[in-house]
Amino acid sequence: MEIKQKIEQANAEAGKRLISAEPVLVDIAPADEVIPGMQDKMITHSGPPIPWEKMCGAQKGAVIGNVLFEGWANDYDEAEEMLKNGEIKLEPNHLHHAVGPMAGTISKSAPVWVVENKTFSNRAFCRQVEGKQQFGNFHEEAIEDLRKWRDLWAPALRKGLKKIGGLDLKPIITQALQMGDELHNRHSASSSLFANKMAVAMAEADTPKSELLPTLYYVTNHNLIFLGLAMACGKAITDPVYDIPYSSIVTAMARNGTEFGIRVSGLGDEWFTAPAPFVDGLYLPGYSEKDAGFDMGDSAITETVGWGAFTLAGASGILSLVGGTPEQAMEYTREMRNITETMHPTYRMPILNFEGISIGIDIRKVVQTSIAPIIDTAIAHKDPGYSIIGAGLVRAPMDCFKKALIAFGKKYQSG
Amino acid sequence: MEIKQKIEQANAEAGKRLISAEPVLVDIAPADEVIPGMQDKMITHSGPPIPWEKMCGAQKGAVIGNVLFEGWANDYDEAEEMLKNGEIKLEPNHLHHAVGPMAGTISKSAPVWVVENKTFSNRAFCRQVEGKQQFGNFHEEAIEDLRKWRDLWAPALRKGLKKIGGLDLKPIITQALQMGDELHNRHSASSSLFANKMAVAMAEADTPKSELLPTLYYVTNHNLIFLGLAMACGKAITDPVYDIPYSSIVTAMARNGTEFGIRVSGLGDEWFTAPAPFVDGLYLPGYSEKDAGFDMGDSAITETVGWGAFTLAGASGILSLVGGTPEQAMEYTREMRNITETMHPTYRMPILNFEGISIGIDIRKVVQTSIAPIIDTAIAHKDPGYSIIGAGLVRAPMDCFKKALIAFGKKYQSG
Repeated sequence: MEIKQKIEQANAEAGKRLISAEPVLVDIAPADEVIPGMQDKMITHSGPPIPWEKMCGAQKGAVIGNVLFEGWANDYDEAEEMLKNGEIKLEPNHLHHAVGPMAGTISKSAPVWVVENKTFSNRAFCRQVEGKQQFGNFHEEAIEDLRKWRDLWAPALRKGLKKIGGLDLKPIITQALQMGDELHNRHSASSSLFANKMAVAMAEADTPKSELLPTLYYVTNHNLIFLGLAMACGKAITDPVYDIPYSSIVTAMARNGTEFGIRVSGLGDEWFTAPAPFVDGLYLPGYSEKDAGFDMGDSAITETVGWGAFTLAGASGILSLVGGTPEQAMEYTREMRNITETMHPTYRMPILNFEGISIGIDIRKVVQTSIAPIIDTAIAHKDPGYSIIGAGLVRAPMDCFKKALIAFGKKYQSG
Repeated sequence: MEIKQKIEQANAEAGKRLISAEPVLVDIAPADEVIPGMQDKMITHSGPPIPWEKMCGAQKGAVIGNVLFEGWANDYDEAEEMLKNGEIKLEPNHLHHAVGPMAGTISKSAPVWVVENKTFSNRAFCRQVEGKQQFGNFHEEAIEDLRKWRDLWAPALRKGLKKIGGLDLKPIITQALQMGDELHNRHSASSSLFANKMAVAMAEADTPKSELLPTLYYVTNHNLIFLGLAMACGKAITDPVYDIPYSSIVTAMARNGTEFGIRVSGLGDEWFTAPAPFVDGLYLPGYSEKDAGFDMGDSAITETVGWGAFTLAGASGILSLVGGTPEQAMEYTREMRNITETMHPTYRMPILNFEGISIGIDIRKVVQTSIAPIIDTAIAHKDPGYSIIGAGLVRAPMDCFKKALIAFGKKYQSG
């Protein structure tokens, strides 16, 4: 069989696996209970592997935040000292079947969303989504939200979830895509639908008012809560595509604020990186591009499975946040058809006559067409200590795809 | 001042009133506690006034349903006898500041949504939305849902609502219009957002599990529950425009399945009617246009305030229900700009670059342009005893507007 044919077959198989995924929320549990390889004094982070010295300001701030949250140090200086001395182990989330938005940091006692892909029985994990610590804010106001998540909100949700025996996420995702969400930066519908389900679940579990009321208040007012679930879904959907020989389909796009990296099915766990790009965005009052760090977060796992900027056409409500016109949004979505393997039969966009979303980025098509994947994203400050400062759009660096294609050629033309 | 100028001024005032409305849900109460003029052995109905003999099959079925629900008769024949003998008083909802979807029937013990327009301190009412009795189904399965609403769901919601002191509906409407709802046939977002607010409210009110759980289950699984609220809002928004001299703005469009009627601000409470049109729609399995009754319901009060088919552009998710393409939906919305007074500053559609919705139908413009208002609607059976059989689009009959314009000319050219 010709190489080209082998690649087509492998990519068809990858597309089939991506499409057949059945993501179910099965738990909300402390990281060290569920994440394989999670250890004491370990912090996992977004993007490709990176040592402490090379981390950007926001990711450093978030790591410090997790050290303080775990009580491993009492203040910033003490935490920084431990990190400089190598007393805290830093590893990428992707090494642990995990993902995290922005700095993406996870440490042992932080509860994570646990999503199982029932089709392949694999599990993936994502940390809590909030607008402070994951952006590099290590101050008390930020850490306090992590504590409430650990001690109050996550346990109450967990009890409810256990009572109903898990929550099928595919119906929520399907509906949300028909309600103006793109499932990366806009989660108004998915979060509301999720809150509906958890309200019933917590009522079923006889949750006492002292836990029920604050948790209901939290989930019904957090219009990005589903981002953590969507990201865990993205990882659970892509992991079964991790190592199909000859497949040129992308299995991860992730950024640590310093580097942008991709992984490719036929190339296993190797990262192909380029400098993290600058985001074209809109800023919150008081901030401008002078303050901005570079592109950051594992959240591009949503684009990897065809959500986010790939479905921008169906989510024009997001444009007030990231900029652009409805026509441009349509154009982005149509453009992504050129670099993807297939269309999803269930996840559809009404505005495009209920066409399916595009899924399965093919590195060959990206390089051939010179169309880089488009990504919705948020913007963190370049220095540690800040909350979210903006949001916008960014293109994945073409160099990642070129490097991957060269490696792909070497591996499979000699093989 | 010239007549034309007086009309422009009056319509500008009408537009200002429509736009300045602040609808708040203030109660969910049995009809005879709150609806002015509601009496024992009275049933109010949708559309212009109509005697029992002239009612269409579905409206007859629904009226029978209310007689059985109130226990005024024990079976169909007994109920029919009472109606033929004039023992049950029939009046239009609009005479009582009320509205109802489809047959629209309301009787004394049925809890209704009570919406207050805080800008003008007027109140309006709408009955429970469901898919059976309001379509003419008078069988036990349909009546049982009315009883649960009366005895369990509505009282639990009422207790929660009282605890939080009312619920501001403008933010929910604003958000829902950016989440693919058009607030007539599609209420996926508004219903989900509303359910979350009521979940918190019921938790705050210490609602016992035996009431909380079934009510949460009801509201979180009823994706048209907000239609009743939207209709009460529509009525509360239009009532302050009821009698502005010289205004040619429509204050109600309503159908009883036999006649389609409109009311016009400068013409007070007079109805201008034409035969109810046939709906161009899609049918549920087992039904076809041979089974269909004519256009019915007060729900076109939503189009009267610029929602429904007027905002179809922003609600392409509905097209699988009512038919048509996204391009046609855009076209309908753009077309309605030609027959309306103004655009709403807060209620906006992202897909049209966040333009405001069109509000305030001007009978002069309708007749001049020959563009009849377009309406999203559901379809009832032509005979009594059935639940919903379909949904679709319909144009208001041009004759209503012509008749109204003639009356308008007579009144104001001689005055």
